[in-house]
Amino acid sequence: MSADLQLDAHGRLRHLLTLDGLPRALLLEILDRAEEFAGDDDSRKKVPLLHGKTVVNLFFEPSTRTRTTFELAAKRLSADVLNIQVAASSTSKGETLLDTLKTLEAMQVDLFVIRHEASGAAHFFASHVEPNVAILNAGDGRHAHPTQGLLDMFTIRRHRPDFSKLTVAIVGDVLHSRVARSDIHALRILGAREIRVIAPRTLIPAGIETLGAQPYCDLDTGLDGVDVVMLLRLQKERMSGAFLPSPGEFHRDYGLTRARLERLKPDAIIMHPGPINRGVEIAGELAYDERSVILEQVRHGIAVRMAVMGMILSRDAETARDATGTRK
Amino acid sequence: MSADLQLDAHGRLRHLLTLDGLPRALLLEILDRAEEFAGDDDSRKKVPLLHGKTVVNLFFEPSTRTRTTFELAAKRLSADVLNIQVAASSTSKGETLLDTLKTLEAMQVDLFVIRHEASGAAHFFASHVEPNVAILNAGDGRHAHPTQGLLDMFTIRRHRPDFSKLTVAIVGDVLHSRVARSDIHALRILGAREIRVIAPRTLIPAGIETLGAQPYCDLDTGLDGVDVVMLLRLQKERMSGAFLPSPGEFHRDYGLTRARLERLKPDAIIMHPGPINRGVEIAGELAYDERSVILEQVRHGIAVRMAVMGMILSRDAETARDATGTRK
Amino acid sequence: MSADLQLDAHGRLRHLLTLDGLPRALLLEILDRAEEFAGDDDSRKKVPLLHGKTVVNLFFEPSTRTRTTFELAAKRLSADVLNIQVAASSTSKGETLLDTLKTLEAMQVDLFVIRHEASGAAHFFASHVEPNVAILNAGDGRHAHPTQGLLDMFTIRRHRPDFSKLTVAIVGDVLHSRVARSDIHALRILGAREIRVIAPRTLIPAGIETLGAQPYCDLDTGLDGVDVVMLLRLQKERMSGAFLPSPGEFHRDYGLTRARLERLKPDAIIMHPGPINRGVEIAGELAYDERSVILEQVRHGIAVRMAVMGMILSRDAETARDATGTRK
Repeated sequence: MSADLQLDAHGRLRHLLTLDGLPRALLLEILDRAEEFAGDDDSRKKVPLLHGKTVVNLFFEPSTRTRTTFELAAKRLSADVLNIQVAASSTSKGETLLDTLKTLEAMQVDLFVIRHEASGAAHFFASHVEPNVAILNAGDGRHAHPTQGLLDMFTIRRHRPDFSKLTVAIVGDVLHSRVARSDIHALRILGAREIRVIAPRTLIPAGIETLGAQPYCDLDTGLDGVDVVMLLRLQKERMSGAFLPSPGEFHRDYGLTRARLERLKPDAIIMHPGPINRGVEIAGELAYDERSVILEQVRHGIAVRMAVMGMILSRDAETARDATGTRK
Repeated sequence: MSADLQLDAHGRLRHLLTLDGLPRALLLEILDRAEEFAGDDDSRKKVPLLHGKTVVNLFFEPSTRTRTTFELAAKRLSADVLNIQVAASSTSKGETLLDTLKTLEAMQVDLFVIRHEASGAAHFFASHVEPNVAILNAGDGRHAHPTQGLLDMFTIRRHRPDFSKLTVAIVGDVLHSRVARSDIHALRILGAREIRVIAPRTLIPAGIETLGAQPYCDLDTGLDGVDVVMLLRLQKERMSGAFLPSPGEFHRDYGLTRARLERLKPDAIIMHPGPINRGVEIAGELAYDERSVILEQVRHGIAVRMAVMGMILSRDAETARDATGTRK
Repeated sequence: MSADLQLDAHGRLRHLLTLDGLPRALLLEILDRAEEFAGDDDSRKKVPLLHGKTVVNLFFEPSTRTRTTFELAAKRLSADVLNIQVAASSTSKGETLLDTLKTLEAMQVDLFVIRHEASGAAHFFASHVEPNVAILNAGDGRHAHPTQGLLDMFTIRRHRPDFSKLTVAIVGDVLHSRVARSDIHALRILGAREIRVIAPRTLIPAGIETLGAQPYCDLDTGLDGVDVVMLLRLQKERMSGAFLPSPGEFHRDYGLTRARLERLKPDAIIMHPGPINRGVEIAGELAYDERSVILEQVRHGIAVRMAVMGMILSRDAETARDATGTRK
């Protein structure tokens, strides 16, 4: 799936589908813009940037948490927001996916935030929408979850600005994880020194090295000297038979515990996309440990989503300003 | 059910319950106002007309699609909007219909958009609300769906401004269709030359001629020389036993196909209230054919609903202006 | 559970958890502020007081009606509002209660409106949130429902300003009722002359006298000479076996009927938190009797909730003004 679809003729962000192939300058611009919304300055908490725009959260997979972050981000940009949970309603009425999209598009929606269980769903939508409609991928199958990748990079950068010095370990069910894929792409783009994935052999995708990551099956070895640990959520519902041991065994072999913190660099940070499974990926006592930046990730998620929505939906205004010479 | 209930002492729109008996001038005024919101002028996409007003979508029948159009229309008029799906919640708590209405009315709601499976529900509510509360019928049983009728007329008018020259065919389950009834009333008011309903005999209401429509049981005959084809959605859930053949047989006898397009006038338009059942009412390949105006209907639905809400809820302001002589 | 948690260092409202122990002056201030929003002046229906603030309705128990009043109140104060129904979604994903709170808190939510089936839930949350986050209890178990108590006092005061002259009877399932507890606390604070609770012996909590209420098992005796009757909703779902007779028997023994109105003072008022069970707590014909103020209670509920939200969330602005001497 090509990343070109997500840039316009001027190289600006038109959709956000994946971090794979996103130009480094554009990725950095997103992070820089997010800084504007991530501060404690209450005057930046609500801005009129997208007043009059319509954002639809179109979720084919339920997720209160992710939907909430996008809804908040859009409301704080003053957009009108609608939440549509597709399942019972229109699909059961025989509407096909494309009919659903075309219908909503006809309602003059400016941006669709789409979550879907099928990899490639966001690309499919993006390749069928009208020129004035944008797609923001909020997670498609095992493929990508680009705003999660961005908020993770934003969080890392606030603690460790120089990626070229970082060794990052991603721990858990990499095979089924769109978060892991987006993080690996982003870390590569930002030039992380070393990326490790740590998981049982059955949960490491074949050919992970071609993405630029080194596989480890032993947690203790993998954590050695690491600057950033990114734990993945264990999706119980996605597990089937042979892939995984019990949650207890998983914790014993791949759970982060206080004892294992010794392995990390002294100033390492601990990350998790949430919600955490206490006693599975992470010992409960570490959730709000001083090294944990898990709640910062949540907060930064709003700022990053505001930045992305703002960049995509204010392109026209910028183009207009370019044309009149008001802006370089 | 009298239409008078929906006009105020000055002949202005107070509720919108049915198109049956709506004065022609008022119907045209709605269409004219909708033009203001149907353009590509982004400055009219969001207006402050109903700032401070409260609109409640009170749906006793689930419908994501229709609810979405009303929610968007109200938000683009800057009203506060609440969605209430009645079923599990309050009715199961023993609240009667009227108690529900009175309770919400006490919350100073200005406008209720009501969908209900019982014909006459909207009239019932309208005859019980306080003078400062308005009812907008979003579909009651088999009775009426007036905003659908209006958006259909709006769409026809944009393509064929002179109704007196039009032959219009309504195809499908007319018997159970509130859409068909509202369209027939509107077409009569606007002076359409000829209105045909085409359906299996069991799905044509007795006495349809008294509404001003001619019944046809043969599709090919009925489509001959037609300017506008309005397909009805086949509501599978409403069908019971004897009424209908299988979807496949229905399509063979009453589905619009490319071959049957030959029957129509060369510049005829194809309409459908959506969502379409591909391969039932219409061959999938025709959904976005150049003669299809189905997506335009969706878009116009927002504009028409904005117009109706605006006219109903800004009456007071106009009365005040009348009184001070600011406005003729 | 201490009430101190809900006041800040300046004695102002920081959370609203219970009316138990609330200073009389503060309770009166809430009622006075609510007067600003309870009038027919449409210019006070929508105000910009909380523009830019984020309110989350976090409901662990479903309640369309209560959620609607809080949602409306917050929207009329121009806050951004999100509704989160917790059950299927995040808890089923293994997130603990506190993780849910911390996560939402990280999204820079300013106020949580919380309903929970466990008594003490609101206090639990209030004792764990950050200094800039507030908790508003929308009902916790059998413990408290403070905004209901406040709107009841507001409604009584509009009809009977002098509480020291009032005899108030609370009728029904007092044992399971958080409404009864909040009303009793408020009536005590405002100096009601006499508070009676009327119920079958099994539904009167042990030691009710220590709260300042007199128990009555006979309805006719209890209603004698009463100024205000507060009926409680019979929660069928909470009833189990031994507590209660059938709804029919309950109505015979504890339902308010026209015949029993004779017992009351001639100008007595009838109250009910809604939704009413017609023919159980109250004869259907009395629901909108001239002595019934049930719909006023609904309306006042919005005003009182606007007042509370406004007082809690505009403290900072006031503190700032204090500091600069703009305000005494």
